[in-house]
Amino acid sequence: MAVYTDITEDDLSAFLEAYDVGQLTSYKGIAEGVENSNFLLHTTKGAYILTLYEKRVNAGDLPFFLGLMHHLADRGLSCPLPLPRADGELLGELSGRPAAVISFLEGMWLRKPEAKHCREVGKALAEMHLAGQGFDLKRPNALSVGGWRPLWVNSEARADEVQTGLKDEISAELAHLENHWPKTLPDGVIHADLFPDNVFFLGDQLSGLIDFYFACNDYLAYDVAVCLNSWCFEKNGSYNITKGMALLSGYESVRKLTAGEVEALPLLCRGSALRFFLTRLYDWLMTPAGALVVKKDPLEYLTKIRFHRAIVSSAEYGLRIEGASA
Amino acid sequence: MAVYTDITEDDLSAFLEAYDVGQLTSYKGIAEGVENSNFLLHTTKGAYILTLYEKRVNAGDLPFFLGLMHHLADRGLSCPLPLPRADGELLGELSGRPAAVISFLEGMWLRKPEAKHCREVGKALAEMHLAGQGFDLKRPNALSVGGWRPLWVNSEARADEVQTGLKDEISAELAHLENHWPKTLPDGVIHADLFPDNVFFLGDQLSGLIDFYFACNDYLAYDVAVCLNSWCFEKNGSYNITKGMALLSGYESVRKLTAGEVEALPLLCRGSALRFFLTRLYDWLMTPAGALVVKKDPLEYLTKIRFHRAIVSSAEYGLRIEGASA
Repeated sequence: MAVYTDITEDDLSAFLEAYDVGQLTSYKGIAEGVENSNFLLHTTKGAYILTLYEKRVNAGDLPFFLGLMHHLADRGLSCPLPLPRADGELLGELSGRPAAVISFLEGMWLRKPEAKHCREVGKALAEMHLAGQGFDLKRPNALSVGGWRPLWVNSEARADEVQTGLKDEISAELAHLENHWPKTLPDGVIHADLFPDNVFFLGDQLSGLIDFYFACNDYLAYDVAVCLNSWCFEKNGSYNITKGMALLSGYESVRKLTAGEVEALPLLCRGSALRFFLTRLYDWLMTPAGALVVKKDPLEYLTKIRFHRAIVSSAEYGLRIEGASA
Repeated sequence: MAVYTDITEDDLSAFLEAYDVGQLTSYKGIAEGVENSNFLLHTTKGAYILTLYEKRVNAGDLPFFLGLMHHLADRGLSCPLPLPRADGELLGELSGRPAAVISFLEGMWLRKPEAKHCREVGKALAEMHLAGQGFDLKRPNALSVGGWRPLWVNSEARADEVQTGLKDEISAELAHLENHWPKTLPDGVIHADLFPDNVFFLGDQLSGLIDFYFACNDYLAYDVAVCLNSWCFEKNGSYNITKGMALLSGYESVRKLTAGEVEALPLLCRGSALRFFLTRLYDWLMTPAGALVVKKDPLEYLTKIRFHRAIVSSAEYGLRIEGASA
């Protein structure tokens, strides 16, 4: 939610000459994207997003992110499409930063999603998983099980500042997940951050998925776990099984979960909740007081970790399991 | 440059029902306007700006600002036009704040304006002064000569933290301006803040004036002084007389300055420079360290005060004075 880099009209107009977007008529820095600077452009041909990639994004990952969006859009998924330059490249440079021009997606993210929207999200997630097949670049998930301990090491000593007992509880949780993390599940390209603010709707129709800057290769069902965590809990911390059923049945209307995935789901949910807990805890402890940044409460995800720890079967998430009583 | 208030799609859609703007298709918080929250809306009918007025703006002034934009746009000035609601009101309420929907003006502000642009600005300023005639609401300029001492009283004791000797120099400057401020000059509605970021261009064509939230009643020539200060100095502090000539001749191509205005111009320039010096100094001293706000350097305006103090005749600004040698 910040614009880090200002750009001059001259530089921008010169930059845009390499693109088939018509004449620039306005550009506004928009309050979207924590990691990058984003501008909404109007030109004589329409609306576009200009993204300048700031230092927190590894420039080596950009071909993966932009290539993936292109791959997915080519296969009919509604997502932002990076426009090619006259030289065929998807990436240029502006104000000393890697920069891309991306199609503008109409739609709004839902501050109060309902079960019917969760169903659409589940469906779109599965469509993305299928559309991602055949994308040939690879990007391992740096924030999967192997990445949690390095994060934890940096926060562990101060964790009890946030809540007494946190140090022991999270240490045990992390050890459990490291020891029991599944070894083989169907994998592919996952979004890895499909929170409500990354899904656009027009009315009740899902109009697109955005922000692929955490996308990577990992277990597909891990992405389902991320969505259950981010879409199906109420603000008071309770799990809304109606939303869970909708999300999971939406997903399975496109791609059936395997028996292995169904069995692993509670553990994947714990892992996904721990991942967001750890990054939020890190930001919480490391962000200087007074900085005008919205710090997200890590404890929201502690509640979720505890909920998942008590789950015995994926049926408790609302998953319809063949031959089982839900 | 901030979005202070988030709004939900439901609230916004309900709010927009009172306006003839079609169906909402997207809205983005934009990094514009220091005092208010601004959103760029796309609807099935086009693009609009939604402004939520935050606490720093006096709600009692909003009818003046919105009415003025309406008055000016009606008279052919290119400026944002507040759209009326079905009940005829220009102001509604959203997320607990006064809110207005305003036409979207295409164009870009110039980071590096040239003399030809200064000419356009001078012309547009004079056009605004003429178009403002007949607007019947009044708003005295709280940041004119009578408002400077209260500002100074709050900063005076700490002024030498910024530069040694500042306390004495500014005290003397303020006393001089209070004693010599003109008593009668042509007055009317002035913009009072027509800096480069408040003037849009498409190519070299001026496409509109924005941000009327400092507009007020004051001497028209004071507005000229604000523009000379904000458009005609180079980054190194030197006055660019080519730009000054362009701005002043652009202005006089629409409205001739009176003999009294010509004579008063150096003093008005000193006063306008002091006004921006004082507000910047106040913000500089009062903004807590670490706050993510761009603090504008007050010393930029100290340089300008000193320059104007040495001016003997308005001809030195590039003003063509009849019967005088420039």
